[in-house]
Amino acid sequence: MGDTAIFRDPAGRTKADIEAGDELLPKFDKDGLLGAIVTDEAGAVLMFAWMNAEALARSLETGVAHFWSRSRNRIWVKGEESGNVLRIREARIDCDQDALWLKVAVDGAGVACHTGARSCFYRAIVPGDAGGFRLVASDH
Amino acid sequence: MGDTAIFRDPAGRTKADIEAGDELLPKFDKDGLLGAIVTDEAGAVLMFAWMNAEALARSLETGVAHFWSRSRNRIWVKGEESGNVLRIREARIDCDQDALWLKVAVDGAGVACHTGARSCFYRAIVPGDAGGFRLVASDH
Repeated sequence: MGDTAIFRDPAGRTKADIEAGDELLPKFDKDGLLGAIVTDEAGAVLMFAWMNAEALARSLETGVAHFWSRSRNRIWVKGEESGNVLRIREARIDCDQDALWLKVAVDGAGVACHTGARSCFYRAIVPGDAGGFRLVASDH
Repeated sequence: MGDTAIFRDPAGRTKADIEAGDELLPKFDKDGLLGAIVTDEAGAVLMFAWMNAEALARSLETGVAHFWSRSRNRIWVKGEESGNVLRIREARIDCDQDALWLKVAVDGAGVACHTGARSCFYRAIVPGDAGGFRLVASDH
């Protein structure tokens, strides 16, 4: 699952070190993964994907978003086939350093979703006619 | 971990049902959880948290964001103590229905992070002076 020793280990660090410090101490989950929220520069959420330590290191070093595919069990560069590569304009980490926010510019056709949609979040959840909920197309 | 039977089960459904249909078929992970990205209406990412089926149902029914706390092992209403309740303006689901995007208005002081910051994502990752990476404060 990649070498988490690429980054310093947050184990044993204080809450203040993690929440208020300037050290990058990413906290990978029990599968060695960290969630990454991808938005465009205007703030539309484009996709959500996972990084292991190696994907995070490659993303930060190259400025091109790399993820860990849980289905294919390998590192992938988003857009490696479609050309819709994600150029990282800013990477932020949250308070407890277990989630990332990447602001990106999308190469090529500007499409982030494998369905051809610009964003993976192309449906809103609304009340159903007979109770429950249904989905409706929702553009940005 | 809550009753996933609150929602229809995506198992056995086609990719087209899940990706292109109007049925809400949330895919909870092996721990019964779904990741929820929370942004304000302008698109700033405020926080990332987890929902089980019950938290999702309560969120959609009440319009107030409920999450599942993995540390406290219970449902929680964000802001139940601080007053910074999240009012859901729109809920979207992604292509494979395993991640949510909530656009919210924050009650009270408008603060989403337990540290007192408006957003949990208050630090950007930048190159370190001696290699590696460090964190710097970053406002919206």
